[in-house]
Amino acid sequence: MDTKTKMDRFFEPRSVAVIGASRHPKKIGHVIFRNFLEGKYNGRLFPINPNAETLFGIECHASVLDVKEAVDMAVITVPSEFVPETLEECGKKNVPAVIIISSGFREIGKIALENKLKAIAKKYGLRVIGTNCIGVYDPYSGVDTFFLPPYKLERPDKGSIAFISQSGALGSVVLDWMSMKDYTISKFISYGNATDVDESDLMEYLVTDDKTRVICAYFEGVNNGRKLFNIASRHSKTKPIIAIKGGVTSEGISAVSSHTGSLAGESDIYSAAFRQSGIIEAKTLEQVFDFARVLSTQPAPKGNKVQIITNGGGFGILTTDWIVKNQLKLARMTKKNRDVVRKACPSYASIKNPIDLTGDATVDRYAVAIQAALDDPNVDMIALITLFQIPTLTAEIVDVISEAARKSKKPIVVIAAGGRFTEVLKKSLEGNGVPCFSYPEKAAEALRALYEYGRAAGK
Amino acid sequence: MDTKTKMDRFFEPRSVAVIGASRHPKKIGHVIFRNFLEGKYNGRLFPINPNAETLFGIECHASVLDVKEAVDMAVITVPSEFVPETLEECGKKNVPAVIIISSGFREIGKIALENKLKAIAKKYGLRVIGTNCIGVYDPYSGVDTFFLPPYKLERPDKGSIAFISQSGALGSVVLDWMSMKDYTISKFISYGNATDVDESDLMEYLVTDDKTRVICAYFEGVNNGRKLFNIASRHSKTKPIIAIKGGVTSEGISAVSSHTGSLAGESDIYSAAFRQSGIIEAKTLEQVFDFARVLSTQPAPKGNKVQIITNGGGFGILTTDWIVKNQLKLARMTKKNRDVVRKACPSYASIKNPIDLTGDATVDRYAVAIQAALDDPNVDMIALITLFQIPTLTAEIVDVISEAARKSKKPIVVIAAGGRFTEVLKKSLEGNGVPCFSYPEKAAEALRALYEYGRAAGK
Repeated sequence: MDTKTKMDRFFEPRSVAVIGASRHPKKIGHVIFRNFLEGKYNGRLFPINPNAETLFGIECHASVLDVKEAVDMAVITVPSEFVPETLEECGKKNVPAVIIISSGFREIGKIALENKLKAIAKKYGLRVIGTNCIGVYDPYSGVDTFFLPPYKLERPDKGSIAFISQSGALGSVVLDWMSMKDYTISKFISYGNATDVDESDLMEYLVTDDKTRVICAYFEGVNNGRKLFNIASRHSKTKPIIAIKGGVTSEGISAVSSHTGSLAGESDIYSAAFRQSGIIEAKTLEQVFDFARVLSTQPAPKGNKVQIITNGGGFGILTTDWIVKNQLKLARMTKKNRDVVRKACPSYASIKNPIDLTGDATVDRYAVAIQAALDDPNVDMIALITLFQIPTLTAEIVDVISEAARKSKKPIVVIAAGGRFTEVLKKSLEGNGVPCFSYPEKAAEALRALYEYGRAAGK
Repeated sequence: MDTKTKMDRFFEPRSVAVIGASRHPKKIGHVIFRNFLEGKYNGRLFPINPNAETLFGIECHASVLDVKEAVDMAVITVPSEFVPETLEECGKKNVPAVIIISSGFREIGKIALENKLKAIAKKYGLRVIGTNCIGVYDPYSGVDTFFLPPYKLERPDKGSIAFISQSGALGSVVLDWMSMKDYTISKFISYGNATDVDESDLMEYLVTDDKTRVICAYFEGVNNGRKLFNIASRHSKTKPIIAIKGGVTSEGISAVSSHTGSLAGESDIYSAAFRQSGIIEAKTLEQVFDFARVLSTQPAPKGNKVQIITNGGGFGILTTDWIVKNQLKLARMTKKNRDVVRKACPSYASIKNPIDLTGDATVDRYAVAIQAALDDPNVDMIALITLFQIPTLTAEIVDVISEAARKSKKPIVVIAAGGRFTEVLKKSLEGNGVPCFSYPEKAAEALRALYEYGRAAGK
């Protein structure tokens, strides 16, 4: 079995053994087994526990070796001292993919114990994700090794953004947040101590994954920088890669060493390597997903000229400031197209950049202005401010924007801040592939990332 | 009647006349009158409309002059050409406070019409908020001149943050957003074209307002810079003032002139004037309220040394980076206090800075670590990361943190990202006066603002 096929088993296993599955609700093995059983996963399930006959009515085995059928993936949750023996059994059983959730290895100085696992993995040709991780979440296959119940940690729906994170807690918290925002995902992998599978292996796998349009990563350290950056260089032009580095100050770097025991390395070196290999560096976690949403849904712009269309003057001004601060330019629409917009607007509307359709803007006025900007040769991107609170703006605006964005070859982003009513309309837009931002700075930063990616990728 | 008493009438009028009140649901005068009628306002209400006998069963007058009782405040919603006559009538009636919602003045070049209003206000000694504004919202008295129904624009509850905004749309959108976040407010004023009452008058009023602990402002231009900065200089040490300037790039400045017709002026000059007069400048709207929440609830720190306590390594690292990037320092707790924490933790916990209580952190472990940091002479502030998704962390943590913060003389902020479960716990903490942030950069920036404010104010 080649390594690609083995890696596939992490995401689409036909059968899963949970080693350390338990009837005690506080045990990690209990929560993981139950998530498989009660979640969307449809394959065969084998609980492994020497002290139980059955679990949730399913026959329980003392060892994975006792399972008669083939096991595509094993999830190990037993205490660290029992992991080598358990992994050895997975090897003998020819389990191609093993996730080790258990901690208590390199991160607490037990390097010899971790090296033992490395040797076993090598001996049997196992692919191992972990140790000290929360594993894999795949909304398409229902694989879900998070040891947290869905009421505490929600899971995002099917999408096209992959996210890899060395830190399990960070990754899961971000997934929970994404879920609340209705952002979607293709695959999530927390790889912890990177005993076997590391960031390069995952990157190599994801660049050819059809379900993934954009790859996001949280790195603390990198196992093999040359390998990672080579892979990124080869693929970043066809598939955007966004990364955030934890440990960019000397204090942050020393915090990294107490966490996953990685060597964090100099942040300047990382930034340079990111840039050279076409990886887009995000400064904040929010930015990672702001960039990803735009890059996974919007075409690359032909240039850096942005037309702002607004129904609120103040938001138009702040957006103008942030567009300019992000080294983008304000578009100057042709007289012809400005006249088209002017005709559709009352005299007090301001048809410059921003186009201010004013506080009594209607859906029709927006439709005309959006079309004029799409038609205009001097406009590369559109930043659309829609303050949904305004009485004249009906919910129909969602259809008008979604339809325009669907047909458009220019990127369109929406800026809309507000409360629950606004959030509902924004989620409809997001569902139709239109990235929405609450505040101007976020939208402008995302447009800049899109512009720079397009330019670097020669689009 | 002195000007202070007149200004009081905007926020606590015993009687309100809505001029242009209407039975047509799409009319601004309809929505405003109905908000007064159906909202929390308890005073007398007079609908003014020459074409109606009654409105919602209340006797309607043709002019404010026909009202027999005294009118404390009038809200004018009639078209711009009728405003001078209507304002004249308010003068004759001795209405001390008038809000002019109507637009169609300076912002579209009708300067003569606006000057006419200025002259009338002066002649009668009226205080006028507007024109071209959405007026006042006061959760304590129930005054609410927003022409937007609550389902589209939610109103925040009673609190201690005042917010003034030249832009009505921007202000209202932000209020809607604050409401969803359960942030609270003392007073909101949108003052539009500043025909009479300007930012200085409002600032002067708010610095002595007992309900207001922090003043926030969105400025496009400033009518009388010298006056504003003098007021700020005198009061900013006792009451924090936070401002954001719209129009900080030359493109943004020209967008300002199309909006409220203000002269935006050079941003560097503003930044310098803000700094010199003790106004804290925010770069984004979110930052305005991040700073305000911390400044309205937390004591000033004695120094710049921050202790981070976390249950997630990755978040600890990112927080470390942002603390350092914001020119704050990592605290070094005494050996004695570190030993206290160590005793309460398993061997794999990392008792440095960050203190990493690890993914199985309990409420008890947090309680010990928080107390040790509060007791420690080397700690000035605490950044508390609580990833609520972790199975061992029960909701009781909210009480432990709230109680510690209530007694503490050191600032405490919480960082917790996630979905709906996390949001519920964060709202409880916010309700108990503990500022919560989703991401490290926001918390670090707010702590820096708090530190700098404390230092500048000599606290």
